[in-house]
Amino acid sequence: MVLLSGGVDSTTTLACAKRDGCELYALSFAYGQRHAIELQAAERVAQGMGVAKHLKISFDLTEIGGSALTGSLAVPKGRSAADMGHGIPVTYVPARNTIFLSFALAWAEVLGATEIYIGVNALDYSGYPDCREPYIRAFEKMAKQATKAGSEGAEVHLCTPLLHLTKAEIIRLGTELGVDYSLTWSCYDPTNGLACGACDSCQLRRKGFQQAGIADPTRYAGAANL
Amino acid sequence: MVLLSGGVDSTTTLACAKRDGCELYALSFAYGQRHAIELQAAERVAQGMGVAKHLKISFDLTEIGGSALTGSLAVPKGRSAADMGHGIPVTYVPARNTIFLSFALAWAEVLGATEIYIGVNALDYSGYPDCREPYIRAFEKMAKQATKAGSEGAEVHLCTPLLHLTKAEIIRLGTELGVDYSLTWSCYDPTNGLACGACDSCQLRRKGFQQAGIADPTRYAGAANL
Repeated sequence: MVLLSGGVDSTTTLACAKRDGCELYALSFAYGQRHAIELQAAERVAQGMGVAKHLKISFDLTEIGGSALTGSLAVPKGRSAADMGHGIPVTYVPARNTIFLSFALAWAEVLGATEIYIGVNALDYSGYPDCREPYIRAFEKMAKQATKAGSEGAEVHLCTPLLHLTKAEIIRLGTELGVDYSLTWSCYDPTNGLACGACDSCQLRRKGFQQAGIADPTRYAGAANL
Repeated sequence: MVLLSGGVDSTTTLACAKRDGCELYALSFAYGQRHAIELQAAERVAQGMGVAKHLKISFDLTEIGGSALTGSLAVPKGRSAADMGHGIPVTYVPARNTIFLSFALAWAEVLGATEIYIGVNALDYSGYPDCREPYIRAFEKMAKQATKAGSEGAEVHLCTPLLHLTKAEIIRLGTELGVDYSLTWSCYDPTNGLACGACDSCQLRRKGFQQAGIADPTRYAGAANL
């Protein structure tokens, strides 16, 4: 099972699960994110990668709020690399990966799946706490206690093939695995279906492609070039 | 913050949080449960107890399935106490408390709440793995790693005032705290707005009231008397 947002990281992670010989089940979430356009990318990617089933779960995190991605706070633009390297930005969505992984744990138990892939990475990332290894390991321990399957001895492993890779390394790996990045979506704040080019997510993506020496197929709005 | 289903346990737990001097925030879930009527009870209880806010999150676990409460499997009726004491029944919903607590963790972070109350109990219960103390402690440890608040040193505590109480003790405690159990709902498999009297949840409730020596205000369908 793969958590699939339709971005670079989760798409590359799906390709890793395929490389590892897994039967693929993809799980996406409509949670009230301002970039719900990413779900169209997730669908394209899931189809392109031949997943056995792609499940989309819907709920509304705008009622909980606390994030620029689910509320009225503005998405920061044009932050410097130094700024992006410090602290947790306002695009952090409270407990998002915990919510996502909880649904994955439920579906994994029903399917009898023992591997949940998640595209977290702790190098070129946005500083979110629920993308770090201590969190991943703690969730795994909790998961053992949480389910009927766990109480019967089954273990669910969280597979994090990108954890120690830079964005450029991720893009190189995905390219080797045949990922078509033109299907993916990264921008947090799209306008008229175009990526802004300036939010943290766009900047990390663009820098990653540049450093990997691979052309970024994304069409960015206006003159937003690196 | 209190997870509130509208049943005996979560309602008593809400009364405990009130006793403990907390400002009350109640969180309920419409997850496709066949006894969605319990949400009306949750609303009545939240109003009666004077909560500051009652939030209801909706999502559909019927797509994930794996439970008699969210699928077409029949809810077992008239099981003996011996049967109920063994194993995990088909009314188990995969990873349900993990999903519920994940949303609670998100809302707690936004509110700055440090206590999440959950009405799990490990004596007169249905054998669900996510109602046991090792699970609760593991979730707490995971939660520390999961959030921005946690990474800044804040801790979220899971408060389980009912953990070591029998159902009769829970009902006595709630009665002392002034709980109006006529507002609550327990049945997994209601018909025409009446409790069946025979599912595990009804049986545990009825036995609890009987052992507590307190009248159960529930109207049960047909001749379903103990």
